[in-house]
Amino acid sequence: MKRASRIAPHPFDEAIALEPRAASADTPSVDSPVEFEGRTHPDYANMVGPFGGITAAQALQAVLQHPQRLGDPVSFTVNFAAGLTDGPFRVEARPVRTNRSTQHWMLTLWQTGADGIDAVMLTATAVTAVRRSTWNAVDEPMPAVSSPNEVLSAPVIDRVRWVGRYDMRLVAGALPLHWDDAEADSLTQMWLRDNPPRPLDYTSLTALADAFFPRIWRRRARMTPIGTVSMTVYYHAGPEELAAVGEDHVLGQARSQSFFNGFFDQSAQLWSEHGHLLATSHQIVYYKE
Amino acid sequence: MKRASRIAPHPFDEAIALEPRAASADTPSVDSPVEFEGRTHPDYANMVGPFGGITAAQALQAVLQHPQRLGDPVSFTVNFAAGLTDGPFRVEARPVRTNRSTQHWMLTLWQTGADGIDAVMLTATAVTAVRRSTWNAVDEPMPAVSSPNEVLSAPVIDRVRWVGRYDMRLVAGALPLHWDDAEADSLTQMWLRDNPPRPLDYTSLTALADAFFPRIWRRRARMTPIGTVSMTVYYHAGPEELAAVGEDHVLGQARSQSFFNGFFDQSAQLWSEHGHLLATSHQIVYYKE
Repeated sequence: MKRASRIAPHPFDEAIALEPRAASADTPSVDSPVEFEGRTHPDYANMVGPFGGITAAQALQAVLQHPQRLGDPVSFTVNFAAGLTDGPFRVEARPVRTNRSTQHWMLTLWQTGADGIDAVMLTATAVTAVRRSTWNAVDEPMPAVSSPNEVLSAPVIDRVRWVGRYDMRLVAGALPLHWDDAEADSLTQMWLRDNPPRPLDYTSLTALADAFFPRIWRRRARMTPIGTVSMTVYYHAGPEELAAVGEDHVLGQARSQSFFNGFFDQSAQLWSEHGHLLATSHQIVYYKE
Repeated sequence: MKRASRIAPHPFDEAIALEPRAASADTPSVDSPVEFEGRTHPDYANMVGPFGGITAAQALQAVLQHPQRLGDPVSFTVNFAAGLTDGPFRVEARPVRTNRSTQHWMLTLWQTGADGIDAVMLTATAVTAVRRSTWNAVDEPMPAVSSPNEVLSAPVIDRVRWVGRYDMRLVAGALPLHWDDAEADSLTQMWLRDNPPRPLDYTSLTALADAFFPRIWRRRARMTPIGTVSMTVYYHAGPEELAAVGEDHVLGQARSQSFFNGFFDQSAQLWSEHGHLLATSHQIVYYKE
């Protein structure tokens, strides 16, 4: 069989592809919203609907593709108002305030229900900024762990398709071997990269921030139903630092601080192999019982 | 002099008082936005404009006063798009998605400029929820520190008025004695409460999350100009747990993970005196040079 001369696009790039809607694309004046069309991608399917990390990446992509964008992402908060259904969606990115070097964004993502009514599925806010060189420091150094080549590549769970889109190499804090309510800590460390490898950018870094299995599963050793409600990512890297990572693994670490009456938090860090803290991320997750 | 029979309102309650605007108050249908009027309060003035924590509390109050609110705050993200000027503002709270037990909010706060044009000064998103009793755990136990009665009450900085509205009792991680660029860690622990004391609620807890002096001042021992860009608060307490705190101090802890090209992060915890982790909070802060 003859091999295609053109390399097929990476599934991640297929997934985050957005098309500007004609009506909004015609009005590229300053501070005007632009609406994009996208759709869920079968390769990033979760148990029900898509992996939250890919949805977050799709929303951020609307900011990145907006013609009036100023600078690069500094902060991004995405609220999962409802589980997306497989199929198309619309996402609007609106620059509500543009300052000299920072810009503030509000986003809304809708899907049309079986009843023909548009429903809000996701809201988000973002801050982009033109960064300047300053005094820098890292107060959360990368833990001393084995290199990705020394760690076995194995999916932590393989019941859902999106997990196959990541190369996950567990360093510490696996899923329980036995779901026996034997409580443990909530810490997991693993090397992560896209599968197949893909050069790191802001969208894939955002998805990686959500790639940890639910902390409560490890903490409690019980298969508790969960759903992320809100996730924030702070970016501590410019385009040059992301380009320097390329297709290398990044080290991810995640843990919780509180599990209280139906909601637990997760704080995560993502470092480059060379120890640059690329992003810190936080989320609050609904759990049942 | 005869004492007034009626106790004067607490300055915090004066500051967060909002009036629904007539037009929006007439339309209390489901999912309709309600617009409120408020104003900055001189007791919570910062060097320029108001203390960010009081502005965040004012925005959250718009959600709490909305007639269609479902449940209590679980997550709140506030983006400071521009520094408020002293005077009136308008804030709109819009419930964009109401589920069975959770509700998603988008907020915008405007001020009218000297040019007569309304400008977005702040955006926010919030999630409220009806919480149910579940299995609970805390993985960030309160540090072993001296009780508030054993620690001297002293403002960490007193050049700005809002600091006088808090009783701050420093446990660890003071401001540098000498601004000599002698680098240190970024950790501060202190007992905090309103001054005069006021029963804790979601709004005052939100303000407390922003009451730490800038991490970079301690980390770097240099008076670097800063401004918070975005703050997220996760609430790990219901109204009963807040009521149990009453007018007691809460223990606050804050530290940074990354200072990179103009933006540093801060992660904070707030515990009750009895060790209940009431809230975890994160922010990203602009710094100059």
